Amino acid sequence: MNPFFLFSIIDFLGVFVAAFGGAIAARRDQRYAFDLVGVLGLGFVSALGGGICRDLLIQHGPPLAFVDTRYLVTAFCGATAGLMLDLRVDAKLQGTLMMVDAAALGLFAVAGATRAMEAGLSSLPALLLGLTTAVGGGSLRDVLSGRTPKVFEKGELYAIVATVAATVFVLLRLLSVNHTVASCVGVGCGFLLRLLTIRFHWMTKSASIR
Amino acid sequence: MNPFFLFSIIDFLGVFVAAFGGAIAARRDQRYAFDLVGVLGLGFVSALGGGICRDLLIQHGPPLAFVDTRYLVTAFCGATAGLMLDLRVDAKLQGTLMMVDAAALGLFAVAGATRAMEAGLSSLPALLLGLTTAVGGGSLRDVLSGRTPKVFEKGELYAIVATVAATVFVLLRLLSVNHTVASCVGVGCGFLLRLLTIRFHWMTKSASIR
Amino acid sequence: MNPFFLFSIIDFLGVFVAAFGGAIAARRDQRYAFDLVGVLGLGFVSALGGGICRDLLIQHGPPLAFVDTRYLVTAFCGATAGLMLDLRVDAKLQGTLMMVDAAALGLFAVAGATRAMEAGLSSLPALLLGLTTAVGGGSLRDVLSGRTPKVFEKGELYAIVATVAATVFVLLRLLSVNHTVASCVGVGCGFLLRLLTIRFHWMTKSASIR
Repeated sequence: MNPFFLFSIIDFLGVFVAAFGGAIAARRDQRYAFDLVGVLGLGFVSALGGGICRDLLIQHGPPLAFVDTRYLVTAFCGATAGLMLDLRVDAKLQGTLMMVDAAALGLFAVAGATRAMEAGLSSLPALLLGLTTAVGGGSLRDVLSGRTPKVFEKGELYAIVATVAATVFVLLRLLSVNHTVASCVGVGCGFLLRLLTIRFHWMTKSASIR
Repeated sequence: MNPFFLFSIIDFLGVFVAAFGGAIAARRDQRYAFDLVGVLGLGFVSALGGGICRDLLIQHGPPLAFVDTRYLVTAFCGATAGLMLDLRVDAKLQGTLMMVDAAALGLFAVAGATRAMEAGLSSLPALLLGLTTAVGGGSLRDVLSGRTPKVFEKGELYAIVATVAATVFVLLRLLSVNHTVASCVGVGCGFLLRLLTIRFHWMTKSASIR
Repeated sequence: MNPFFLFSIIDFLGVFVAAFGGAIAARRDQRYAFDLVGVLGLGFVSALGGGICRDLLIQHGPPLAFVDTRYLVTAFCGATAGLMLDLRVDAKLQGTLMMVDAAALGLFAVAGATRAMEAGLSSLPALLLGLTTAVGGGSLRDVLSGRTPKVFEKGELYAIVATVAATVFVLLRLLSVNHTVASCVGVGCGFLLRLLTIRFHWMTKSASIR
């Protein structure tokens, strides 16, 4: 099977799950009473914000999410599901969501770096833009919810996993490894590392010097 | 009379009123003591932030507000008026401001969708960019004032009115209705619907599941 | 000596100091426990956010910081220094940092206006984009740290100094003064005015009408 077909599935599943998760998080917010606009809006931002930030920074035409309408439709469906479902997300569904999110984390990092390199940027910016794609949506959601991006605070290794995935991909490409292979290894590294960090509760430490 | 001449008047009045309102809101802020830079800055952002966000997302040249200097001058005048006037805004002036704001809401939504379609984007992104134009300035102001965008919280139907205006316009255009007619109907729908929501105190409900 | 060689030194020193200062500020944050990602991220944003905002608004190719990799490397070194150093910044180092910051303030304002004019924008937008370059990084850092931009609040004259530097430069250019001379005068004005405002504790007043 062509791995890019698998990637495409992970991509849209990732967008759906991020929109769903963003909408649910908005409904659970302790400080603000978000309405339908807020829930859908924060779902959209969670799902598409990272890629849109990347495309603004690359300055190579309108954001992919506005050109390929399937992204908007997928995000809309995910956010609407998050708005409608009144059930408590049970443990089994939670596990599935976590798996999709872990796979999407690596994929978004690799896809972001790929897009930056295709637009002519060099390795270091490409790496940063991969990271931006992976964590930008959630961070923008956090800012729009009146808090600091969660990836900046001590806790789960999320941005670091994305950085590793993008770095592995970029290094393999620098070593002239075939694009398909480099992509698969990068996405796979991100996925496995994310599962490991969850399984073993690896956490980042505070860097405070108060 | 050419309706686009009327639209141009509403456009600049809308920018003026948004800058004025943003500056007054900054001076009334309960949590922060904004200075002249903050008041003028938040006035500018309220007035021009929506259009600038739209133009960044469209990626079709520098923001209109930086190319047509009349927008900057109008926003500056509005923000300066908000900075200087020490009077309590009385009920009659309040009513006028509200009418201008209602007319501008529909116009910004339609103008944003128009600009997105002219840049080659399809209906769904155009609709979202119309909404962004209408509510982006106020939302950016809210974020820069350390809160979540008011359009996301339960309360007045603001984003929904903008969405309706943009949707009506986009649908009429899809049905090949003449641009002038579609614009007039879209702006008119937005204006009337906004007045209705104010008159009858229509509110959105919280979607919280805490 | 070619003044632009001096400018280049101030430019990179300014980026380094801003990244260092942003990282230290993140570690001293009273409300959030930032980890390594947060400290490096806020250092990057402080150093490069202003120029990146300017380049997004100009829409004239990808941000300079992503094209000329020396900026990323300099910001990375500055942020890493801020992350590593556990010493309390002593008075002498504090004085040096303050001098570099004051010189960079004027330079960033002039460089931003220059870049905007080179992209074909007129004087008023160029002035605003000079201001954006100078204060955008710190402001973005503030927003990502969950507060309102410090330049908006009553206190030190920071944005006003940047505005003066950019205005002096733009006016001299309008009077057809040679680019090198106009740049030197603009940067010098910004530097001296910033030192004066610190020496004499000039402050802006609150514009509140609560």
